[in-house]
Amino acid sequence: MSDRPDTPLLDKVVTPADMKGLSDGALRQLANELRSETISAVSETGGHLGAGLGVVELTVALHAVFEAPRDKIIWDVSHQSYPHKILTGRRDRIRTLRQKDGLSGFTKRSESPYDPFGAAHSSTSISAALGFAVARDLGGQIPEGLGDAIAVIGDGAMSAGMAFEAMNNAGHLKKRMIVILNDNEMSIAPPTGALSSYLSRLYNGESFTSFKEAAKAGARLLPPPLQEGAKRARDILKGIAVGGTMFEELGFSYIGPIDGHDLTQLLPVLRTVKTRADGPVLIHVVTKKGKGYAPAERATDKGHATAKFDVPSFEQKKAPSNAPSYTSVFGKELVRLAAEDPRICAVTAAMPDGTGLQLMAERFPTRCFDVGIAEQHGVTFAAGLAAGGLRPFCAMYSTFLQRGYDQVVHDVAIQRLPVRFAIDRAGLVGADGATHAGSYDIAFLANLPGMVVMAAADEAELKHMVATAAAHDEGPIAFRYPRGEGAGVEMPEKGILLEIGKGRIISRGKGVALLSFGTRLQEVQKAAEALSLRGITPTIADARFAKPLDREMILDLAATHEALITIEEGAVGGFGSHVAQLLSDEGVFDAGLKFRSMVLPDIFIDQSSPADMYATARLNASDIEARVLDTLGLERLGRRA
Amino acid sequence: MSDRPDTPLLDKVVTPADMKGLSDGALRQLANELRSETISAVSETGGHLGAGLGVVELTVALHAVFEAPRDKIIWDVSHQSYPHKILTGRRDRIRTLRQKDGLSGFTKRSESPYDPFGAAHSSTSISAALGFAVARDLGGQIPEGLGDAIAVIGDGAMSAGMAFEAMNNAGHLKKRMIVILNDNEMSIAPPTGALSSYLSRLYNGESFTSFKEAAKAGARLLPPPLQEGAKRARDILKGIAVGGTMFEELGFSYIGPIDGHDLTQLLPVLRTVKTRADGPVLIHVVTKKGKGYAPAERATDKGHATAKFDVPSFEQKKAPSNAPSYTSVFGKELVRLAAEDPRICAVTAAMPDGTGLQLMAERFPTRCFDVGIAEQHGVTFAAGLAAGGLRPFCAMYSTFLQRGYDQVVHDVAIQRLPVRFAIDRAGLVGADGATHAGSYDIAFLANLPGMVVMAAADEAELKHMVATAAAHDEGPIAFRYPRGEGAGVEMPEKGILLEIGKGRIISRGKGVALLSFGTRLQEVQKAAEALSLRGITPTIADARFAKPLDREMILDLAATHEALITIEEGAVGGFGSHVAQLLSDEGVFDAGLKFRSMVLPDIFIDQSSPADMYATARLNASDIEARVLDTLGLERLGRRA
Repeated sequence: MSDRPDTPLLDKVVTPADMKGLSDGALRQLANELRSETISAVSETGGHLGAGLGVVELTVALHAVFEAPRDKIIWDVSHQSYPHKILTGRRDRIRTLRQKDGLSGFTKRSESPYDPFGAAHSSTSISAALGFAVARDLGGQIPEGLGDAIAVIGDGAMSAGMAFEAMNNAGHLKKRMIVILNDNEMSIAPPTGALSSYLSRLYNGESFTSFKEAAKAGARLLPPPLQEGAKRARDILKGIAVGGTMFEELGFSYIGPIDGHDLTQLLPVLRTVKTRADGPVLIHVVTKKGKGYAPAERATDKGHATAKFDVPSFEQKKAPSNAPSYTSVFGKELVRLAAEDPRICAVTAAMPDGTGLQLMAERFPTRCFDVGIAEQHGVTFAAGLAAGGLRPFCAMYSTFLQRGYDQVVHDVAIQRLPVRFAIDRAGLVGADGATHAGSYDIAFLANLPGMVVMAAADEAELKHMVATAAAHDEGPIAFRYPRGEGAGVEMPEKGILLEIGKGRIISRGKGVALLSFGTRLQEVQKAAEALSLRGITPTIADARFAKPLDREMILDLAATHEALITIEEGAVGGFGSHVAQLLSDEGVFDAGLKFRSMVLPDIFIDQSSPADMYATARLNASDIEARVLDTLGLERLGRRA
Repeated sequence: MSDRPDTPLLDKVVTPADMKGLSDGALRQLANELRSETISAVSETGGHLGAGLGVVELTVALHAVFEAPRDKIIWDVSHQSYPHKILTGRRDRIRTLRQKDGLSGFTKRSESPYDPFGAAHSSTSISAALGFAVARDLGGQIPEGLGDAIAVIGDGAMSAGMAFEAMNNAGHLKKRMIVILNDNEMSIAPPTGALSSYLSRLYNGESFTSFKEAAKAGARLLPPPLQEGAKRARDILKGIAVGGTMFEELGFSYIGPIDGHDLTQLLPVLRTVKTRADGPVLIHVVTKKGKGYAPAERATDKGHATAKFDVPSFEQKKAPSNAPSYTSVFGKELVRLAAEDPRICAVTAAMPDGTGLQLMAERFPTRCFDVGIAEQHGVTFAAGLAAGGLRPFCAMYSTFLQRGYDQVVHDVAIQRLPVRFAIDRAGLVGADGATHAGSYDIAFLANLPGMVVMAAADEAELKHMVATAAAHDEGPIAFRYPRGEGAGVEMPEKGILLEIGKGRIISRGKGVALLSFGTRLQEVQKAAEALSLRGITPTIADARFAKPLDREMILDLAATHEALITIEEGAVGGFGSHVAQLLSDEGVFDAGLKFRSMVLPDIFIDQSSPADMYATARLNASDIEARVLDTLGLERLGRRA
């Protein structure tokens, strides 16, 4: 705390209105102070550092030139929004970032009128900005007013199909709107795909576009008197000269590339665009992720996401881990299997590290495919690999698999193609909050005919499920597992093949049966321990499969217990609902069964620690214990005790 | 039948192997016969006519030059695959198209080895082809072998983000593969978006690309000795001269545009590409939808989809309708409301006719947006419109809304933005079969916090739900309704506002309560009539809402009846599962309740009439009747009677 940077100018800026009288030179100083404050804040909270540092000058320039909240500045993904938060009335809470009851790590409508459209998943900003632009032109009325619509989107995010769809539509509608392409050649992983190469060519001046045609298309947007001096004018002219054909072809006026850390380029360009734009404009800004903080600039991931750290050294303060992460268990077992079976290959959508596939990419680079931020393509590409006789693993976070849902249904499930879905970040995820929760995959997969849906109860189980999925050629199969460390169980040398559709009894008791699907099993076991002190000995079972259900085991549990309670890390419609369907189909409810299904509640849960979020969700051991007592009619007794 | 065309050459072609000895002139004749046979067949079956007629020559050329099934020809969407089916061993069944137990209206892996990757939704072909190309290069083994991978994709389908994602990835991986862009300037609706304008400019020779650079990029793929004569060479050269920059920038060699009805252009280009391609190639082919059948060429929709028809006149044999379609009821009520409220606007993803929004587009063109085949963008664009103070209706088929699922979760539901989802084609849809079934929307929407989910029991109810949705500014709201005609009920002049989360009792009986969600209500009523003959008088209720549930009504039904049966046109995880969750949470099962949930079964149901498909699904009146008897323990008695 004592090391907080000296920020005399920033201290006077509470909202962008306070920037309006500042000279360009003062804005330069403000940017420097903003950078220091960002580094200082993230060193205390952890979070996304590199992206914000890359847009410090852009943030200052946008707020100096435009009139937020009337003008809508929409940060794509919004990893890069911390400097924006600092300048828009939230500096006093910036050191609560990503913490319980603190600021979200992303933009959020409910947090501030300066966040006109929240984000956390990639590539939505152009669609949203177009919506604001159209609403403005149709006379929409909102308290903040409707001015310019400005999407700030990274080059990685621009490669997603959704961004292309939005560009295509915006170019057609010809509404005044501004897309700022923040080209840092680095999203979370190094960029991939042909668009990335194209942008590099633009920046290197190697475009195929003829000078004359492109200049003609962009010329009317040039700062006309060029008050800012000959050098900048030349830079910008040069930018217009070299490229942007692809964007021009999509109906945008292209300006760039310009140096995103040079306010003497940014400010006049933004001022001119503000004054003169009469249709969709794309401003191509080149920045460096991690800019201005040498340790981040040097880091492989440019300081993308960090724990709390020491500012001088960038030494991160991570708690020692007790068990391997689920992600690494998946990655290692996959590599082990891939070494034995040349048919095994893998697909990630721009998350090689996050999914553990980096291990596969290092060991078998020709069999590991990073398709970029492109879940729709990634799923169907995997389906094509399966149709071609390979054994593809499609590794995505639960929340991002939502992007490829139709492809799972239409290309994989209907065709019964054996794509293996490795679903990471199942359930609640902690600091990333509601937007990243993996709440729905059980429900949206388990009702697809022919799909197999597993959840790992611990890291050893995950290892078995990777092996089981690899061997399953009869149709699609999915297995889910949470963020974070395993339970610390003993690890088998290699995964063994599970029988499809068979659960396991962990311990036999009586009266109440607790049927767990996923890693709540540890909480179930804790709850059982607490209950045993009261003379209640539940039977504990691990379902392993939400589809196909272990009918025999479940019907037996129902027949031999007074109460049956399912527990899962997912929303209603998933495992518990499938169990309920089985029980009702079989008439088990007719004569009475105390059946309960513990699922994620019907609320979006804001960021906190996973344990705390599960407390909110009432899915921790104490909640399970309480539910057992309540179900058995003992709750009040328990409370009195 | 007596008017079948004379097809002496086609009669000798059972599979593409039979084409291998044919001269180019004979292939021309084969194409003419194939066109006649296609027209004749579709005149008997109805179906997608225009798209197939547009690719007759391309189909002949592909099968003459390439070696299917070893080479993988993947027809995007596959509306255009009928000529392909005729040439690949299925001519004997072509007059069973889209009928029960007949050929699918789409390509289908289980139907033929010549269909390496089935389709029905748009824009998947490039991803699949890339999968095959990579599998080939990694040594994948399948019975048919792995040769060239060829995607044939329309200009409308190319505008979808998924196609862009695949192009971006293919251009990066540089595998040999072929994309044939079938540019007919017409998908289902007239094309929209900037890409469409770009393609038109290419075709008109107005591209910004410089001749020299583009020619250099494509030149190595030119037919080298140009045996086919100077004119064609000139045509193709001209094509390479004028354009394709965008595709070149994505890493593809671009060839075109070439005349897709001229075999003397198609054959040499395909032969050359087959011989010389060493990376991704895009061949830009210009065709006319409906080509060669004058009435289709003249039609506004180019004969996109047709009922059975008379070949000379193109007069279609449609059954007279007894009631307005749900689609038109939606469209008209929306227009009525839009006339009163300037905030109402609408978004469709390339389906203005199919969704009924054509009416809105005609009456309020500035407030109706066809975003192209772009559901991801469409949903978030609608969210932006809502954030800008408008009242957007996002009208999509249930099956296509799957494409925008993440956007519904992340951009709409988490932000509680009042987007109105008008979900057409809910439930089973008839001739389009399993790929178009609207089976999952209840499940994937009803577990989203803050979402309101309604289903219309009849066309009057739909009218009320449109009005209710228009007035609902508190958050997102969805209403679903099926394909086809309404029930013929009396129509109110205008929709009235329904109370959110309140169902209605249709008739009070005793013993068993039938709780319907959606248009199965008519079947429920028929079942009740049949049951009344046996002295059973069920209570009938229309839930109206799957979310929020009418807790009071449902708990009252459970408390006052021996049995409660839910019925819906959706898969497990939806309405019935939410009711089960409520009942279990409330302990209603503890003392016994004969609860059953009738949902779509766990199979993909092939095309037939909707009534027949619902018979397969066991959701018709007789099935409901049987389920009631069975639940009450009376089934065997009933069967003996």
